[in-house]
Amino acid sequence: MAPPTLNRDELSNLSFVLHKPLHVSYQERPKPTLQSPHHVVVAVDYTGICGSDVHYWRHGAIGHFVVRQPMVLGHESAGTVVETGRAVTHLRPGDRVAIEPGYACRRCVDCRAGRYNLCDEMVFAATPPHDGTLTGLWSSPADFCYKLPDAVSLREGALIEPLAVAVHMVKQAAVQPGQSVVVMGAGPVGLLCAAVARAYGASAVLTADIVQPKLDFAARFASTHTYLSRRVAPEDNAAAIKCLLGLPRGADAVIDASGAEPSIQTSLHTVRRGGTFVQGGMGKPDVTFPIMALCLNEVTAKGSFRYGPGDYELAINLVASGKVDVKKLVTATVPFHEAGEAFRKAAEGEVIKILIAGPNGDKE
Amino acid sequence: MAPPTLNRDELSNLSFVLHKPLHVSYQERPKPTLQSPHHVVVAVDYTGICGSDVHYWRHGAIGHFVVRQPMVLGHESAGTVVETGRAVTHLRPGDRVAIEPGYACRRCVDCRAGRYNLCDEMVFAATPPHDGTLTGLWSSPADFCYKLPDAVSLREGALIEPLAVAVHMVKQAAVQPGQSVVVMGAGPVGLLCAAVARAYGASAVLTADIVQPKLDFAARFASTHTYLSRRVAPEDNAAAIKCLLGLPRGADAVIDASGAEPSIQTSLHTVRRGGTFVQGGMGKPDVTFPIMALCLNEVTAKGSFRYGPGDYELAINLVASGKVDVKKLVTATVPFHEAGEAFRKAAEGEVIKILIAGPNGDKE
Amino acid sequence: MAPPTLNRDELSNLSFVLHKPLHVSYQERPKPTLQSPHHVVVAVDYTGICGSDVHYWRHGAIGHFVVRQPMVLGHESAGTVVETGRAVTHLRPGDRVAIEPGYACRRCVDCRAGRYNLCDEMVFAATPPHDGTLTGLWSSPADFCYKLPDAVSLREGALIEPLAVAVHMVKQAAVQPGQSVVVMGAGPVGLLCAAVARAYGASAVLTADIVQPKLDFAARFASTHTYLSRRVAPEDNAAAIKCLLGLPRGADAVIDASGAEPSIQTSLHTVRRGGTFVQGGMGKPDVTFPIMALCLNEVTAKGSFRYGPGDYELAINLVASGKVDVKKLVTATVPFHEAGEAFRKAAEGEVIKILIAGPNGDKE
Amino acid sequence: MAPPTLNRDELSNLSFVLHKPLHVSYQERPKPTLQSPHHVVVAVDYTGICGSDVHYWRHGAIGHFVVRQPMVLGHESAGTVVETGRAVTHLRPGDRVAIEPGYACRRCVDCRAGRYNLCDEMVFAATPPHDGTLTGLWSSPADFCYKLPDAVSLREGALIEPLAVAVHMVKQAAVQPGQSVVVMGAGPVGLLCAAVARAYGASAVLTADIVQPKLDFAARFASTHTYLSRRVAPEDNAAAIKCLLGLPRGADAVIDASGAEPSIQTSLHTVRRGGTFVQGGMGKPDVTFPIMALCLNEVTAKGSFRYGPGDYELAINLVASGKVDVKKLVTATVPFHEAGEAFRKAAEGEVIKILIAGPNGDKE
Repeated sequence: MAPPTLNRDELSNLSFVLHKPLHVSYQERPKPTLQSPHHVVVAVDYTGICGSDVHYWRHGAIGHFVVRQPMVLGHESAGTVVETGRAVTHLRPGDRVAIEPGYACRRCVDCRAGRYNLCDEMVFAATPPHDGTLTGLWSSPADFCYKLPDAVSLREGALIEPLAVAVHMVKQAAVQPGQSVVVMGAGPVGLLCAAVARAYGASAVLTADIVQPKLDFAARFASTHTYLSRRVAPEDNAAAIKCLLGLPRGADAVIDASGAEPSIQTSLHTVRRGGTFVQGGMGKPDVTFPIMALCLNEVTAKGSFRYGPGDYELAINLVASGKVDVKKLVTATVPFHEAGEAFRKAAEGEVIKILIAGPNGDKE
Repeated sequence: MAPPTLNRDELSNLSFVLHKPLHVSYQERPKPTLQSPHHVVVAVDYTGICGSDVHYWRHGAIGHFVVRQPMVLGHESAGTVVETGRAVTHLRPGDRVAIEPGYACRRCVDCRAGRYNLCDEMVFAATPPHDGTLTGLWSSPADFCYKLPDAVSLREGALIEPLAVAVHMVKQAAVQPGQSVVVMGAGPVGLLCAAVARAYGASAVLTADIVQPKLDFAARFASTHTYLSRRVAPEDNAAAIKCLLGLPRGADAVIDASGAEPSIQTSLHTVRRGGTFVQGGMGKPDVTFPIMALCLNEVTAKGSFRYGPGDYELAINLVASGKVDVKKLVTATVPFHEAGEAFRKAAEGEVIKILIAGPNGDKE
Repeated sequence: MAPPTLNRDELSNLSFVLHKPLHVSYQERPKPTLQSPHHVVVAVDYTGICGSDVHYWRHGAIGHFVVRQPMVLGHESAGTVVETGRAVTHLRPGDRVAIEPGYACRRCVDCRAGRYNLCDEMVFAATPPHDGTLTGLWSSPADFCYKLPDAVSLREGALIEPLAVAVHMVKQAAVQPGQSVVVMGAGPVGLLCAAVARAYGASAVLTADIVQPKLDFAARFASTHTYLSRRVAPEDNAAAIKCLLGLPRGADAVIDASGAEPSIQTSLHTVRRGGTFVQGGMGKPDVTFPIMALCLNEVTAKGSFRYGPGDYELAINLVASGKVDVKKLVTATVPFHEAGEAFRKAAEGEVIKILIAGPNGDKE
Repeated sequence: MAPPTLNRDELSNLSFVLHKPLHVSYQERPKPTLQSPHHVVVAVDYTGICGSDVHYWRHGAIGHFVVRQPMVLGHESAGTVVETGRAVTHLRPGDRVAIEPGYACRRCVDCRAGRYNLCDEMVFAATPPHDGTLTGLWSSPADFCYKLPDAVSLREGALIEPLAVAVHMVKQAAVQPGQSVVVMGAGPVGLLCAAVARAYGASAVLTADIVQPKLDFAARFASTHTYLSRRVAPEDNAAAIKCLLGLPRGADAVIDASGAEPSIQTSLHTVRRGGTFVQGGMGKPDVTFPIMALCLNEVTAKGSFRYGPGDYELAINLVASGKVDVKKLVTATVPFHEAGEAFRKAAEGEVIKILIAGPNGDKE
């Protein structure tokens, strides 16, 4: 079947705009044009809601990122290429793509060294003052749009972004086949971390959370073990986790996808001597931290921030090969005009992941 | 000149023994014999006093390591080989050696993987219940005794142990030529870290401390910059350090050799995005820690514990080549019978490093 | 079911001994005793025949390793623990184990650094002058015997050795999920490399060989693609492989498990810029090698020799988890008295892997 | 002293152009303009002659790179900024810079992963069909021009390019303090490799060559040992080198900066088990190579091609800090109109490095 012809002129650029906390509107915005011969314009088909979107919607800010002028929300999107710059060779109109929503400068020390996620000049969707992808048409450097293979649907494509976050976290953890991995937190990224760790060959993947139904889902999704964290000393939760895994030395890697202080503390008591801890979840800027556990056990602790070279490619590969079934995370898909309602549901925690169809219609 | 003949029978095995906090005695203990064909017996010539020795002397314990029976103190030693097992080929009587005072099991997962400092069965000198090296004769696996080249004196040999600690910390920091390194703390290990970082090619090495005279010494010893830490927010100390270094992005590596909470906090705000932080100093088990700085900047934080494969060899190499002048750290050398007085001086902070000659006489 | 009681006194130590090329005999040899408190004695249950065994059997030598006195053959074995030294805690009589047949010195620079396979003092089974495992009873350091989980049979246990060889080769290749891997050679180790590469998450694993039936087996076993190498220039075989994989840039990793000169040449033209080549197969000491392809494309070429820390553990894990089905490689199992005939079959290439039951009977 | 005002209109763009082998001319070419807001225009002050320049001059081609239309030669240059694009912040007119003469696409997999030297779309100076830097004015992306600190002269700046080549080779060799390094070849890059290896802390650096006067220079420049290679088997040259170094196990790293087949062969017999070999020198595409030495000793062999992220910065740092004294390599500096004669001298091997002043005059 030939892809539907997309006529730029006939497409809407309706956008979902945050004005101030809890105040949003739908605005028809000017259609973007190709900004360079290396750019493409994409019609956005599906967009997932991320915790950070909800946080901006509710509070108008995250840390020192403050929404000071109306900002389009959304950054987890897939779409269909409408127009390509003359230097673009790997994409053509009609191609279905996952959108990587942050563009680095390509010139700084970090970009040149292959750490573009650390670029200080990063322009990232739905991070003030930059508009996001809950819009009809999106202009992007072509190399930040990744063609979806036939085996990956556009809805799955909208989940490539959070999956890339999880891929990056597992890469930071340097998981190897046969290893044991503990993931703190069973939100969407934590669930995906468990699945990615399995794809990296981990033999045992334990997910810990404080909500039993989330653990039940985790067990069905990808975890080999689950642990309901208790209100006890971190050493005690850690001892219980090690016992459950049958690993008195501790786990090879522990990934915090929760940002919660007790989880971070438990992590450092759970990881084995010489093991790796990854902080991926966002939370309080400062926590009480068992620094001597890190020192004496020569733990390697690494931060994980967004995603970098190869992460989107691998995320798509994992979905295409069936190793990570992101569809299971989608609780519902709603039309564009229900975006506001979708944010309310996401904020109330009623869903794992909710998708919003683009204003130009639901493709699948 | 031929080395002096050492007759085991004529040598004393007088030992400096801790009974309980602040109670020590000198005891003539039974002379050790070769425990295997791979062992050697060494006459201890010089021993430095480490902060941990002082801590045991004063408090009788460090954390859960408690002195429950009389224990010989000391673990920073060099000496002269007296006797060698029949399987020993690289040493012979009369050889001057630096003693690595901890013996791992060689059989566990960590030993086999080249991380013997993490061996759970480590037998470490002057760590309860194991006796230390402030004694006349020391029996050791031969591969934990490192022959000193002619260019390295026995007194310098006694400083190889703390230098190996610093070598391990700088290795954990993965310092590369041209990089910038910040060292928190100007005690003996911090001073040596600065010197080792220079030997690794670091262009800028800043030492921070709260005692100006220590910084003055650091500047004469190996640091290119010094910073007197102030009682301000860690972000402010960090900003001042980055300004002093002319590095708005931050330092490539920060090594904490202090164990002090404010230093650790400052470290995380001083290291650049994608840089490395090493916790080498001992201190409180838990500290308030800027975990989001680690997360968002993808800092790699590593613990450093004692030393492992190659560290002693490199430490000796750095002294032999003149790259690290450990002699400058020796404030005084005292005879064995003044060991008690030496501990008092060390406890009062009157010295950088004090050496105690072995009971069989001062060789140099 | 309780394990059968093994009475050392009732067990045979019949051994299969090579005297000179093609001359073998069965000898009842003295029963080994525990050589140290850290040793175990194992009754050998199954032993696979390796290409090196066949080579010694036929030629009496491999390179400068020459059989000068009668030598027991065999080194791919699993067995049942009969006796344990008093310091052994992780094994007890009756435990089924995979035997790692080489013991390093534990004291040299390489052993201490975690590269014990490079130990110059390695004592390796069936490598002159050391006897092998085609015997009734085998004495071994306990940490070189790995307990088999219930899910792994003793016959599978005998294949852990070649699987560990393949694990080491894939580790050297640093294979990551989503990558493309080419394996040169479809002998037992090449087949296992393909399976291990899949377990490491490789998306595409192409096996190349010059024998179509071997490729047919490879396709059923673990390879996603196969290629029948032709008598053409290596660049042309490489171009065909890249075309087959749909990877004009080349494969991420290429592993030579053949030792054949044309395969090695093709490998260097097949690997992508910045990719990895691993030489695991044995062959001629010197070959014509496309060194400028390595230079200009910054290929990393690594040798792979036997196995090191963690390789046996991972091999057992891969079998236990069902990720590598080693049983498929076993063409036949024969009783001990047919060992000579088994060598003839192996030498004629009639089998993939033939197992020889131990002289104390076929357990399974 | 204020830098001299550079008026673009008053500057010549005279260029040294190769038409066919040994046929060159001086042409006044159109002055380049800023190609983007991120570009700068630089007045070229000094240019060194590289072996590849001489090869093009003499043969009109290197491998499949063939000079089919007139091409400006030269790519080792330093100059003075004349004009800056409006987005350029780190440079301003009058700044003295080292020029990195190859520009990558910034968009491909290799560029994004921090391996831009492997970019397939690289535009590299004086590599057909791209013009080189023996010209008056050079337009460049600003991030490929590196400001020289006051301590580095423009003449030294012209040597940053070959020094960056050496830096990259030593980085590929992963040299660590205290290690032993052997460099094959005492041409300019080999000499610089020895100096960089020293800056990386290597204790012993042996340079091998077949020309004694080159070795004499090497000994004065940076090598701790030199070896005059003989026409013997590579194993014998290797044995002699190991003997000279007092290292029976072999050297930690061997770098081939010669491209000569016997040197490459000797290298593989000289490197220790588990050591590293780097192929940096250009030569025959295929050589007879001791592949089993690589296999059995688990040698890591890496290619080194040009330079990548951080290499220019470190090269400048090494010169500024006095660790590498590139001035010693400059045999002569000639005015622009003597470029032809300079090529003849370089081709005849009468010089180590000859510099050609830019057509706008000799600055220093």
